[in-house]
Amino acid sequence: MSPQALKATKGEETRAQILDAAVMQAGRGGFESITIGSLAERTGLSKSGLFAHFGSRKDLQIAVLDEAARRFTQAVFLPAMKVPRGLARLRAIFQGWVAWPEHGKLRGCPMQGASAEYDDLPGPMRTAVAERQRQLAGELVKAVTMAVDSGELRDDTDARQFVFEMTGFVLACYTSQRLLGDAGAQARALAGFERLVDHHRPPAPKTATRPAAARR
Amino acid sequence: MSPQALKATKGEETRAQILDAAVMQAGRGGFESITIGSLAERTGLSKSGLFAHFGSRKDLQIAVLDEAARRFTQAVFLPAMKVPRGLARLRAIFQGWVAWPEHGKLRGCPMQGASAEYDDLPGPMRTAVAERQRQLAGELVKAVTMAVDSGELRDDTDARQFVFEMTGFVLACYTSQRLLGDAGAQARALAGFERLVDHHRPPAPKTATRPAAARR
Repeated sequence: MSPQALKATKGEETRAQILDAAVMQAGRGGFESITIGSLAERTGLSKSGLFAHFGSRKDLQIAVLDEAARRFTQAVFLPAMKVPRGLARLRAIFQGWVAWPEHGKLRGCPMQGASAEYDDLPGPMRTAVAERQRQLAGELVKAVTMAVDSGELRDDTDARQFVFEMTGFVLACYTSQRLLGDAGAQARALAGFERLVDHHRPPAPKTATRPAAARR
Repeated sequence: MSPQALKATKGEETRAQILDAAVMQAGRGGFESITIGSLAERTGLSKSGLFAHFGSRKDLQIAVLDEAARRFTQAVFLPAMKVPRGLARLRAIFQGWVAWPEHGKLRGCPMQGASAEYDDLPGPMRTAVAERQRQLAGELVKAVTMAVDSGELRDDTDARQFVFEMTGFVLACYTSQRLLGDAGAQARALAGFERLVDHHRPPAPKTATRPAAARR
Protein backbone atom coordinates (compact mmCIF):
# COMPACT_ATOMS: atom_id res chain seq x y z
CA MET A 1 0.00 0.00 0.00
CA SER A 2 1.34 3.43 -0.91
CA PRO A 3 1.95 5.91 1.94
CA GLN A 4 -0.90 8.02 0.51
CA ALA A 5 -3.34 5.09 0.52
CA LEU A 6 -2.21 4.12 4.01
CA LYS A 7 -2.85 7.66 5.20
CA ALA A 8 -6.32 7.66 3.59
CA THR A 9 -7.18 4.34 5.25
CA LYS A 10 -5.98 5.62 8.59
CA GLY A 11 -8.17 8.72 8.08
CA GLU A 12 -11.23 6.58 7.35
CA GLU A 13 -10.55 4.49 10.43
CA THR A 14 -10.32 7.57 12.61
CA ARG A 15 -13.53 8.94 11.09
CA ALA A 16 -15.30 5.62 11.73
CA GLN A 17 -14.01 5.61 15.30
CA ILE A 18 -15.31 9.14 15.89
CA LEU A 19 -18.69 8.31 14.39
CA ASP A 20 -18.96 5.19 16.50
CA ALA A 21 -18.35 7.16 19.68
CA ALA A 22 -20.79 9.84 18.52
CA VAL A 23 -23.61 7.38 17.73
CA MET A 24 -23.22 5.94 21.24
CA GLN A 25 -23.31 9.42 22.74
CA ALA A 26 -26.41 10.39 20.71
CA GLY A 27 -28.17 7.29 22.05
CA ARG A 28 -27.46 8.31 25.63
CA GLY A 29 -27.61 12.10 25.85
CA GLY A 30 -29.17 13.01 22.50
CA PHE A 31 -27.64 14.63 19.43
CA GLU A 32 -27.47 18.01 21.14
CA SER A 33 -25.03 16.53 23.64
CA ILE A 34 -22.59 15.96 20.77
CA THR A 35 -19.97 18.68 20.68
CA ILE A 36 -16.48 18.69 19.22
CA GLY A 37 -15.21 19.02 22.80
CA SER A 38 -17.20 16.11 24.26
CA LEU A 39 -16.13 13.84 21.40
CA ALA A 40 -12.49 14.84 21.69
CA GLU A 41 -12.69 13.74 25.32
CA ARG A 42 -14.43 10.46 24.41
CA THR A 43 -12.07 9.50 21.61
CA GLY A 44 -8.85 10.88 23.01
CA LEU A 45 -8.34 12.87 19.79
CA SER A 46 -7.51 16.56 19.66
CA LYS A 47 -10.24 19.12 18.97
CA SER A 48 -8.32 20.30 15.90
CA GLY A 49 -8.19 16.69 14.65
CA LEU A 50 -11.97 16.46 14.99
CA PHE A 51 -12.43 19.76 13.18
CA ALA A 52 -10.24 18.40 10.37
CA HIS A 53 -12.64 15.47 9.97
CA PHE A 54 -16.00 17.22 10.28
CA GLY A 55 -15.56 20.95 9.91
CA SER A 56 -18.34 22.09 12.21
CA ARG A 57 -20.51 20.73 14.97
CA LYS A 58 -23.59 20.81 12.69
CA ASP A 59 -21.74 18.83 9.99
CA LEU A 60 -20.68 16.36 12.64
CA GLN A 61 -24.24 15.96 13.93
CA ILE A 62 -25.57 15.32 10.43
CA ALA A 63 -22.75 12.84 9.77
CA VAL A 64 -23.81 10.98 12.93
CA LEU A 65 -27.42 10.96 11.74
CA ASP A 66 -26.28 9.49 8.41
CA GLU A 67 -24.18 6.91 10.20
CA ALA A 68 -27.26 5.88 12.23
CA ALA A 69 -29.32 5.67 9.01
CA ARG A 70 -26.59 3.57 7.36
CA ARG A 71 -26.58 1.14 10.28
CA PHE A 72 -30.36 0.93 10.20
CA THR A 73 -30.32 0.09 6.48
CA GLN A 74 -27.66 -2.52 7.04
CA ALA A 75 -29.42 -4.08 10.04
CA VAL A 76 -33.01 -3.93 8.77
CA PHE A 77 -33.37 -3.43 5.01
CA LEU A 78 -30.44 -5.38 3.57
CA PRO A 79 -31.35 -8.68 5.30
CA ALA A 80 -35.02 -8.15 4.36
CA MET A 81 -34.05 -7.80 0.69
CA LYS A 82 -32.95 -11.46 0.77
CA VAL A 83 -36.49 -12.47 1.78
CA PRO A 84 -39.06 -12.88 -1.06
CA ARG A 85 -40.93 -9.64 -1.73
CA GLY A 86 -44.45 -9.49 -0.35
CA LEU A 87 -45.68 -10.21 3.16
CA ALA A 88 -42.55 -12.19 4.10
CA ARG A 89 -40.31 -9.20 3.34
CA LEU A 90 -42.65 -6.75 5.06
CA ARG A 91 -42.62 -8.92 8.16
CA ALA A 92 -38.83 -9.22 8.03
CA ILE A 93 -38.54 -5.43 7.90
CA PHE A 94 -40.87 -5.03 10.87
CA GLN A 95 -39.06 -7.66 12.93
CA GLY A 96 -35.69 -6.13 12.11
CA TRP A 97 -36.93 -2.65 12.95
CA VAL A 98 -38.24 -3.67 16.36
CA ALA A 99 -35.03 -5.51 17.25
CA TRP A 100 -32.30 -3.40 15.67
CA PRO A 101 -31.32 -1.09 18.58
CA GLU A 102 -30.74 -4.20 20.70
CA HIS A 103 -28.78 -6.01 17.98
CA GLY A 104 -26.75 -2.89 17.21
CA LYS A 105 -25.87 -2.65 20.92
CA LEU A 106 -27.43 0.80 20.82
CA ARG A 107 -29.26 2.40 23.69
CA GLY A 108 -32.45 2.98 21.74
CA CYS A 109 -32.95 3.96 18.13
CA PRO A 110 -30.90 7.11 17.42
CA MET A 111 -33.27 8.17 14.63
CA GLN A 112 -36.22 7.93 16.99
CA GLY A 113 -34.32 9.90 19.61
CA ALA A 114 -33.50 12.55 17.01
CA SER A 115 -37.16 12.83 16.03
CA ALA A 116 -38.17 13.59 19.59
CA GLU A 117 -35.24 15.95 20.07
CA TYR A 118 -35.64 18.07 16.94
CA ASP A 119 -39.36 17.96 16.20
CA ASP A 120 -39.69 21.43 17.66
CA LEU A 121 -36.22 22.88 17.05
CA PRO A 122 -36.14 24.40 13.54
CA GLY A 123 -32.78 24.18 11.79
CA PRO A 124 -30.67 21.91 9.59
CA MET A 125 -30.89 18.94 11.99
CA ARG A 126 -34.69 19.05 12.09
CA THR A 127 -34.78 19.20 8.29
CA ALA A 128 -32.33 16.30 8.02
CA VAL A 129 -34.26 14.14 10.50
CA ALA A 130 -37.61 14.84 8.82
CA GLU A 131 -36.14 14.03 5.40
CA ARG A 132 -34.82 10.67 6.59
CA GLN A 133 -38.08 9.80 8.34
CA ARG A 134 -40.03 10.60 5.14
CA GLN A 135 -37.62 8.42 3.19
CA LEU A 136 -38.17 5.55 5.62
CA ALA A 137 -41.95 5.95 5.41
CA GLY A 138 -41.65 5.87 1.61
CA GLU A 139 -39.68 2.60 1.72
CA LEU A 140 -42.23 1.09 4.10
CA VAL A 141 -45.13 2.12 1.85
CA LYS A 142 -43.33 0.38 -1.03
CA ALA A 143 -42.96 -2.80 1.03
CA VAL A 144 -46.67 -2.76 1.95
CA THR A 145 -47.62 -2.16 -1.69
CA MET A 146 -45.58 -5.19 -2.74
CA ALA A 147 -47.55 -7.33 -0.29
CA VAL A 148 -50.75 -5.98 -1.88
CA ASP A 149 -49.38 -6.76 -5.35
CA SER A 150 -48.53 -10.29 -4.29
CA GLY A 151 -52.15 -10.76 -3.20
CA GLU A 152 -51.23 -11.29 0.45
CA LEU A 153 -52.86 -8.04 1.57
CA ARG A 154 -56.24 -6.80 0.30
CA ASP A 155 -56.39 -4.58 -2.78
CA ASP A 156 -58.05 -1.80 -0.80
CA THR A 157 -55.25 -1.68 1.81
CA ASP A 158 -54.38 1.93 2.65
CA ALA A 159 -50.58 1.56 2.60
CA ARG A 160 -49.95 4.88 4.38
CA GLN A 161 -52.39 3.98 7.16
CA PHE A 162 -50.76 0.55 7.44
CA VAL A 163 -47.32 2.18 7.77
CA PHE A 164 -48.68 4.68 10.33
CA GLU A 165 -49.96 1.85 12.51
CA MET A 166 -46.86 -0.33 12.26
CA THR A 167 -44.72 2.71 13.09
CA GLY A 168 -46.86 3.22 16.18
CA PHE A 169 -46.14 -0.33 17.37
CA VAL A 170 -42.40 0.26 16.99
CA LEU A 171 -42.57 3.55 18.91
CA ALA A 172 -44.64 1.97 21.70
CA CYS A 173 -42.12 -0.87 21.82
CA TYR A 174 -39.11 1.42 22.16
CA THR A 175 -40.81 3.49 24.88
CA SER A 176 -41.94 0.44 26.86
CA GLN A 177 -38.51 -1.13 26.65
CA ARG A 178 -36.38 1.86 27.45
CA LEU A 179 -38.47 3.79 29.93
CA LEU A 180 -40.44 0.99 31.59
CA GLY A 181 -37.99 -1.88 31.09
CA ASP A 182 -40.80 -4.01 29.66
CA ALA A 183 -39.18 -7.24 28.45
CA GLY A 184 -42.38 -8.24 26.62
CA ALA A 185 -42.54 -5.11 24.46
CA GLN A 186 -41.12 -6.70 21.30
CA ALA A 187 -43.64 -9.55 21.54
CA ARG A 188 -46.45 -7.00 21.91
CA ALA A 189 -45.25 -5.09 18.85
CA LEU A 190 -45.10 -8.30 16.80
CA ALA A 191 -48.59 -9.29 17.99
CA GLY A 192 -49.88 -5.86 16.94
CA PHE A 193 -48.28 -6.29 13.52
CA GLU A 194 -49.82 -9.73 13.00
CA ARG A 195 -53.25 -8.41 13.97
CA LEU A 196 -52.79 -5.56 11.51
CA VAL A 197 -51.84 -8.07 8.80
CA ASP A 198 -54.81 -10.31 9.64
CA HIS A 199 -57.15 -7.36 9.32
CA HIS A 200 -55.87 -6.73 5.78
CA ARG A 201 -55.82 -10.31 4.51
CA PRO A 202 -57.93 -10.84 1.43
CA PRO A 203 -61.00 -13.05 1.94
CA ALA A 204 -60.31 -16.72 1.28
CA PRO A 205 -60.72 -17.23 -2.48
CA LYS A 206 -64.26 -18.33 -3.29
CA THR A 207 -63.01 -20.84 -5.87
CA ALA A 208 -61.80 -22.97 -2.98
CA THR A 209 -65.33 -23.50 -1.64
CA ARG A 210 -67.11 -23.83 -4.98
CA PRO A 211 -66.03 -27.38 -5.84
CA ALA A 212 -67.35 -28.60 -2.46
CA ALA A 213 -70.70 -26.89 -3.14
CA ALA A 214 -70.79 -28.37 -6.67
CA ARG A 215 -70.21 -31.83 -5.25
CA ARG A 216 -73.52 -31.78 -3.36
CA MET B 1 -59.33 38.79 52.83
CA SER B 2 -56.73 38.86 55.58
CA PRO B 3 -53.22 40.06 54.68
CA GLN B 4 -52.00 36.48 55.29
CA ALA B 5 -54.57 34.95 52.93
CA LEU B 6 -53.84 37.62 50.34
CA LYS B 7 -50.16 36.81 50.51
CA ALA B 8 -50.88 33.07 50.13
CA THR B 9 -53.07 33.73 47.08
CA LYS B 10 -50.40 35.92 45.55
CA GLY B 11 -47.88 33.15 46.19
CA GLU B 12 -50.09 30.59 44.45
CA GLU B 13 -50.54 32.88 41.49
CA THR B 14 -46.79 33.36 41.13
CA ARG B 15 -46.26 29.63 41.43
CA ALA B 16 -48.87 28.99 38.71
CA GLN B 17 -47.26 31.62 36.50
CA ILE B 18 -43.83 30.00 36.90
CA LEU B 19 -45.23 26.53 36.16
CA ASP B 20 -47.02 27.81 33.08
CA ALA B 21 -43.80 29.28 31.68
CA ALA B 22 -41.94 26.09 32.58
CA VAL B 23 -44.46 23.77 30.87
CA MET B 24 -44.11 25.86 27.70
CA GLN B 25 -40.35 25.69 27.92
CA ALA B 26 -40.38 21.91 28.48
CA GLY B 27 -42.48 21.55 25.32
CA ARG B 28 -39.95 23.44 23.27
CA GLY B 29 -36.49 22.62 24.59
CA GLY B 30 -37.19 19.68 26.88
CA PHE B 31 -37.20 19.41 30.67
CA GLU B 32 -33.42 19.57 30.81
CA SER B 33 -33.61 23.08 29.37
CA ILE B 34 -35.46 24.18 32.52
CA THR B 35 -33.11 25.89 34.92
CA ILE B 36 -33.81 28.37 37.68
CA GLY B 37 -31.89 30.93 35.60
CA SER B 38 -33.77 30.38 32.32
CA LEU B 39 -37.11 30.58 34.13
CA ALA B 40 -36.13 33.71 36.01
CA GLU B 41 -35.43 35.28 32.63
CA ARG B 42 -38.73 34.05 31.16
CA THR B 43 -40.91 35.15 34.07
CA GLY B 44 -39.06 38.30 35.04
CA LEU B 45 -38.81 37.01 38.62
CA SER B 46 -35.63 36.94 40.64
CA LYS B 47 -33.63 33.72 40.98
CA SER B 48 -34.00 33.89 44.73
CA GLY B 49 -37.78 34.23 44.29
CA LEU B 50 -37.79 31.08 42.18
CA PHE B 51 -35.69 29.24 44.75
CA ALA B 52 -38.20 30.29 47.40
CA HIS B 53 -40.97 28.59 45.41
CA PHE B 54 -39.24 25.40 44.32
CA GLY B 55 -36.09 24.88 46.34
CA SER B 56 -34.00 23.10 43.71
CA ARG B 57 -33.92 22.60 39.98
CA LYS B 58 -34.85 18.92 40.37
CA ASP B 59 -37.86 19.86 42.53
CA LEU B 60 -38.86 22.42 39.92
CA GLN B 61 -38.59 19.86 37.09
CA ILE B 62 -40.75 17.36 38.98
CA ALA B 63 -43.28 20.11 39.78
CA VAL B 64 -43.47 20.85 36.04
CA LEU B 65 -44.00 17.16 35.29
CA ASP B 66 -46.84 17.10 37.82
CA GLU B 67 -48.33 20.22 36.31
CA ALA B 68 -48.28 18.56 32.87
CA ALA B 69 -49.92 15.44 34.36
CA ARG B 70 -52.57 17.61 36.04
CA ARG B 71 -53.39 19.32 32.75
CA PHE B 72 -53.56 15.97 30.98
CA THR B 73 -56.01 14.64 33.56
CA GLN B 74 -58.10 17.77 33.26
CA ALA B 75 -58.08 17.77 29.45
CA VAL B 76 -58.49 14.04 28.86
CA PHE B 77 -59.78 12.06 31.84
CA LEU B 78 -62.19 14.47 33.51
CA PRO B 79 -64.30 15.04 30.36
CA ALA B 80 -64.24 11.29 29.62
CA MET B 81 -65.63 10.57 33.11
CA LYS B 82 -68.85 12.32 32.03
CA VAL B 83 -69.26 9.80 29.19
CA PRO B 84 -70.90 6.44 30.07
CA ARG B 85 -68.32 3.82 31.06
CA GLY B 86 -67.50 1.26 28.42
CA LEU B 87 -66.51 1.76 24.81
CA ALA B 88 -67.85 5.33 24.69
CA ARG B 89 -65.59 6.38 27.56
CA LEU B 90 -62.59 4.52 26.15
CA ARG B 91 -63.10 6.28 22.82
CA ALA B 92 -63.46 9.67 24.56
CA ILE B 93 -60.16 9.08 26.36
CA PHE B 94 -58.42 8.16 23.12
CA GLN B 95 -59.81 11.15 21.25
CA GLY B 96 -58.86 13.50 24.08
CA TRP B 97 -55.37 12.04 24.30
CA VAL B 98 -54.70 12.50 20.60
CA ALA B 99 -55.94 16.09 20.63
CA TRP B 100 -54.84 17.42 24.00
CA PRO B 101 -51.47 19.02 23.12
CA GLU B 102 -53.25 21.05 20.44
CA HIS B 103 -56.13 22.02 22.73
CA GLY B 104 -53.75 22.88 25.56
CA LYS B 105 -51.82 25.14 23.17
CA LEU B 106 -48.80 23.02 23.95
CA ARG B 107 -46.07 22.24 21.50
CA GLY B 108 -46.36 18.49 21.82
CA CYS B 109 -47.17 16.36 24.83
CA PRO B 110 -44.74 17.24 27.65
CA MET B 111 -45.07 13.75 29.16
CA GLN B 112 -44.17 12.15 25.84
CA GLY B 113 -41.24 14.52 25.48
CA ALA B 114 -40.09 13.65 28.99
CA SER B 115 -40.25 9.93 28.18
CA ALA B 116 -37.92 10.35 25.22
CA GLU B 117 -35.67 12.68 27.20
CA TYR B 118 -35.20 10.58 30.33
CA ASP B 119 -35.59 6.99 29.12
CA ASP B 120 -31.84 6.61 29.26
CA LEU B 121 -30.87 9.12 31.96
CA PRO B 122 -31.14 7.43 35.37
CA GLY B 123 -32.18 9.75 38.18
CA PRO B 124 -35.22 11.15 39.98
CA MET B 125 -36.76 12.56 36.77
CA ARG B 126 -36.58 9.21 34.97
CA THR B 127 -38.18 7.52 37.98
CA ALA B 128 -40.90 10.18 38.12
CA VAL B 129 -41.67 9.93 34.39
CA ALA B 130 -41.78 6.12 34.43
CA GLU B 131 -44.08 6.18 37.49
CA ARG B 132 -46.53 8.54 35.76
CA GLN B 133 -46.47 6.54 32.52
CA ARG B 134 -47.20 3.34 34.46
CA GLN B 135 -50.06 5.11 36.22
CA LEU B 136 -51.48 6.22 32.86
CA ALA B 137 -51.18 2.69 31.43
CA GLY B 138 -53.01 1.41 34.53
CA GLU B 139 -55.88 3.88 34.01
CA LEU B 140 -56.10 2.90 30.35
CA VAL B 141 -56.18 -0.81 31.20
CA LYS B 142 -59.08 -0.04 33.56
CA ALA B 143 -60.95 1.78 30.79
CA VAL B 144 -60.45 -1.14 28.38
CA THR B 145 -61.59 -3.61 31.05
CA MET B 146 -64.78 -1.61 31.56
CA ALA B 147 -65.51 -1.91 27.83
CA VAL B 148 -65.02 -5.68 28.16
CA ASP B 149 -67.32 -5.75 31.20
CA SER B 150 -69.99 -3.84 29.27
CA GLY B 151 -69.85 -6.50 26.56
CA GLU B 152 -68.65 -4.06 23.90
CA LEU B 153 -65.24 -5.72 23.62
CA ARG B 154 -64.68 -9.48 23.58
CA ASP B 155 -64.13 -11.35 26.83
CA ASP B 156 -60.73 -12.57 25.67
CA THR B 157 -59.45 -9.03 24.98
CA ASP B 158 -55.88 -8.65 26.23
CA ALA B 159 -56.28 -5.23 27.87
CA ARG B 160 -52.52 -4.61 28.14
CA GLN B 161 -52.01 -5.44 24.46
CA PHE B 162 -54.94 -3.16 23.57
CA VAL B 163 -53.37 -0.32 25.56
CA PHE B 164 -49.96 -0.97 23.97
CA GLU B 165 -51.45 -0.64 20.49
CA MET B 166 -53.53 2.45 21.22
CA THR B 167 -50.48 4.07 22.81
CA GLY B 168 -48.58 3.36 19.60
CA PHE B 169 -51.19 5.21 17.55
CA VAL B 170 -50.88 8.26 19.81
CA LEU B 171 -47.07 8.22 19.58
CA ALA B 172 -47.16 7.87 15.78
CA CYS B 173 -49.66 10.74 15.67
CA TYR B 174 -47.50 13.09 17.75
CA THR B 175 -44.38 12.28 15.68
CA SER B 176 -46.16 12.72 12.34
CA GLN B 177 -47.69 15.99 13.43
CA ARG B 178 -44.69 17.62 15.01
CA LEU B 179 -41.81 16.39 12.89
CA LEU B 180 -43.50 15.89 9.53
CA GLY B 181 -46.30 18.45 9.86
CA ASP B 182 -48.83 15.79 8.84
CA ALA B 183 -52.27 17.38 9.21
CA GLY B 184 -53.97 14.00 8.74
CA ALA B 185 -52.19 12.32 11.66
CA GLN B 186 -55.07 12.61 14.14
CA ALA B 187 -57.46 11.05 11.60
CA ARG B 188 -54.99 8.18 11.07
CA ALA B 189 -54.73 7.60 14.81
CA LEU B 190 -58.52 7.54 15.16
CA ALA B 191 -58.82 5.14 12.20
CA GLY B 192 -56.25 2.86 13.85
CA PHE B 193 -58.20 2.95 17.10
CA GLU B 194 -61.48 2.06 15.38
CA ARG B 195 -59.83 -0.84 13.56
CA LEU B 196 -58.45 -2.03 16.89
CA VAL B 197 -61.93 -1.81 18.42
CA ASP B 198 -63.51 -3.64 15.45
CA HIS B 199 -61.03 -6.43 15.85
CA HIS B 200 -62.10 -6.89 19.47
CA ARG B 201 -65.86 -6.65 19.01
CA PRO B 202 -67.73 -9.68 20.23
CA PRO B 203 -69.44 -11.72 17.51
CA ALA B 204 -73.01 -10.56 16.82
CA PRO B 205 -75.26 -12.32 19.32
CA LYS B 206 -76.73 -15.47 17.79
CA THR B 207 -80.14 -14.83 19.36
CA ALA B 208 -80.59 -11.94 16.92
CA THR B 209 -80.56 -14.20 13.87
CA ARG B 210 -82.58 -17.07 15.36
CA PRO B 211 -86.05 -15.49 15.14
CA ALA B 212 -85.53 -14.86 11.42
CA ALA B 213 -84.49 -18.49 10.94
CA ALA B 214 -87.51 -19.67 12.95
CA ARG B 215 -89.82 -17.60 10.78
CA ARG B 216 -88.96 -19.64 7.67
